[in-house]
Amino acid sequence: MPEFLRLSPPIQALQILLDSLPERKPADEAIRSIDALGRVLAADVRAPHSLPEFPRSSVDGFAVRANDTFGVSEALPGYLQLVGEILMGKSPTVVITPDTCVSIHTGGMLPEGANAVLMLEHSQAVKRRGPGNEEINEIEILRPVAVGENVILVGEDVKKDQIVLKAGARIRPAEIGGCMALGISLLRVAIPPRIGIISSGDEVVPPDCSPHPGQVRDVNSHSLAALVKDSGGDPVLYGIVPDNLQAMKSVAGIALNECDAILITAGSSASARDHTAEAIASLGGPGILVHGVNVRPGKPTILAVCGGKAVIGLPGNPVSALVIGKLFAIPIIERMLGLNVVHPHPSVLAKMEMNIASQAGREDWVAVRIHSSPSQSIPSEERIWMAEPIFGKSNLIFSLAMADGLVRIPPNSTGVSSGEMVEVVLL
Amino acid sequence: MPEFLRLSPPIQALQILLDSLPERKPADEAIRSIDALGRVLAADVRAPHSLPEFPRSSVDGFAVRANDTFGVSEALPGYLQLVGEILMGKSPTVVITPDTCVSIHTGGMLPEGANAVLMLEHSQAVKRRGPGNEEINEIEILRPVAVGENVILVGEDVKKDQIVLKAGARIRPAEIGGCMALGISLLRVAIPPRIGIISSGDEVVPPDCSPHPGQVRDVNSHSLAALVKDSGGDPVLYGIVPDNLQAMKSVAGIALNECDAILITAGSSASARDHTAEAIASLGGPGILVHGVNVRPGKPTILAVCGGKAVIGLPGNPVSALVIGKLFAIPIIERMLGLNVVHPHPSVLAKMEMNIASQAGREDWVAVRIHSSPSQSIPSEERIWMAEPIFGKSNLIFSLAMADGLVRIPPNSTGVSSGEMVEVVLL
Repeated sequence: MPEFLRLSPPIQALQILLDSLPERKPADEAIRSIDALGRVLAADVRAPHSLPEFPRSSVDGFAVRANDTFGVSEALPGYLQLVGEILMGKSPTVVITPDTCVSIHTGGMLPEGANAVLMLEHSQAVKRRGPGNEEINEIEILRPVAVGENVILVGEDVKKDQIVLKAGARIRPAEIGGCMALGISLLRVAIPPRIGIISSGDEVVPPDCSPHPGQVRDVNSHSLAALVKDSGGDPVLYGIVPDNLQAMKSVAGIALNECDAILITAGSSASARDHTAEAIASLGGPGILVHGVNVRPGKPTILAVCGGKAVIGLPGNPVSALVIGKLFAIPIIERMLGLNVVHPHPSVLAKMEMNIASQAGREDWVAVRIHSSPSQSIPSEERIWMAEPIFGKSNLIFSLAMADGLVRIPPNSTGVSSGEMVEVVLL
Repeated sequence: MPEFLRLSPPIQALQILLDSLPERKPADEAIRSIDALGRVLAADVRAPHSLPEFPRSSVDGFAVRANDTFGVSEALPGYLQLVGEILMGKSPTVVITPDTCVSIHTGGMLPEGANAVLMLEHSQAVKRRGPGNEEINEIEILRPVAVGENVILVGEDVKKDQIVLKAGARIRPAEIGGCMALGISLLRVAIPPRIGIISSGDEVVPPDCSPHPGQVRDVNSHSLAALVKDSGGDPVLYGIVPDNLQAMKSVAGIALNECDAILITAGSSASARDHTAEAIASLGGPGILVHGVNVRPGKPTILAVCGGKAVIGLPGNPVSALVIGKLFAIPIIERMLGLNVVHPHPSVLAKMEMNIASQAGREDWVAVRIHSSPSQSIPSEERIWMAEPIFGKSNLIFSLAMADGLVRIPPNSTGVSSGEMVEVVLL
């Protein structure tokens, strides 16, 4: 089969792939909320009760009836009798009647009768003698408080039965905190999709071998496995297949059957690339959707859907394989996880240090190192980041290991000028 | 002890803390390279051999002696006798003598005598009859190649003994790929520092309890544990300590002894905060370095070094605790891991949707949601992200769970205007 490259732009190619994949709810499992960091929620989570469950003070001060404070000022202070203290973690035993107050701490429960909290800073403790000469503790109020002031109302954070976490959300520390606040100890999360990874090439040997002259170690199985793991998938390695059509058909068929999607890195010779394409074409319909993407590195990419599962043929060279993995495998994994957030790539804004030319019509991803300018002595938040392109043949894995990120030069651009601000997508 | 807040700007406060911590090489362990994703290298890694180990072709074509091609053109082609094919993964058995060539595939080993590769596209197979009428395979060359053209030289990726990965680097998929290429199966990585986490407050109960009125569940132990895990630390939970100075001194002492640093979330009442400060002050010199940071949320933060270990007193409310954890605990963990890369926070550039006021002199971190504008139909790489601030009291954990990131309003600013581009640090 001759190599036929219809060169789709990467964005369009990805869209074709995504549009051809069936909508399928990911398989899910229940796990402990505290173990769910990084996982993707499979179902909406509703609040089992309101939060807070009782009105709480948001400051240190005195729980009062707001109307007892109306009209007071520093010139004309008001006075309230101090009738006790709200203990932390306890339900109040006092009731606030007119012209009385209790001391309350941040987070303390508002007692019955009170509807506002006066800040400690706007009051002053005073003592006076009562009719029988007994000591009476009073609070001098120097300014009025409105109803609800310095109070967190019941349900102000979330209301009972409100959806607090949506299916498709990635669990971060804040989500774990939210679950703790509501006593939600289990979450249903998507089971990581199994991503079969096949390496190929007569010249490729396992990484723990000593290659003979002419042989190279398998880089892609493990770098792609790491990429898959990093984005929430479960990599399943199928080893190295020789440049043999029957062998590739057979291994790819097994992998497709056992996994939710497969990644095949083609052998680097033209005939090996042809075998990969032919093997993919044999795996079932609709088959190959895109053969060749207008991107550098990564042009000889194959995108296919076979039997409802994504099959990606990646270039054999390690740098191209990783870039294509980022562009196509990660979005497929996120789709299978049910991730519903259209998230930007984590990136930093940096100033390009030199001119980079790019062919119009082609999307280029240029590896860069970033460093701060002009010196380390400026605190990190105030720094300007500089992007220094790493020029290297795309076969050189260490050009990527030395890079901090990739800069995208869009198809409609002919390059980036020195001094231009660019978005560096972090590796 | 009265609460005394010297309000340092966060950057300066962090610097004071870092400067007071002893330089200490992190403890390390050897693990399999393929399991090292996300870990931090403890020692430089040198290349055990050059990469590639043999000269390789970077294209499909013909291995030639460059000087046999000098002077040829489409008008005046040259001819070389085709004497064989380089098999992938094999050491060549032919030697290229003048006016001969062999076919070679991408990644194939250059044979002796050859010093360049002619691309398939710039040649043409022809046949002619020899003196005895035998068929001779020849290659018509349509353009010259320079010495070294389309060849990856021995050591062009890395040279033997070159440092290929530096101590302090975080292992990403590209680093794993690099290790595979060189057959490096074990790496020495930093052991995750043990970070003790203490929650406190008479009102705080474990998350799996049903709180009585006045009580709240412990959010901070687990949200901070997730944050610590996420940044490469090993969280060790010491439970919830009541608002009692002796209890706090005792638990903090044990935690400091068993861990490399500790985080204490103060009870929310003023007296509980005082206990935290006093307990920290009792843990050893130099003690409290910063008490109060000019940041919102998170003002009542305590930064201390006791017995050579960092101790951070975080505000009790969950949102402040997470923001302060991000600002101070993560840099401490990264320092203990020996991470040598001054990395920017992963962030995206977005357009602020409305005006946000901020007090001059104070650094504000505002929670925002990001969404793409104007519509989902624009491919993700071409989108403009919009940042919508989430206004909520800092006690509301779900204001953070709903947020995509935080926008920093620096101390020297009085706010952000609607339409201004801001850097959203992803949560």
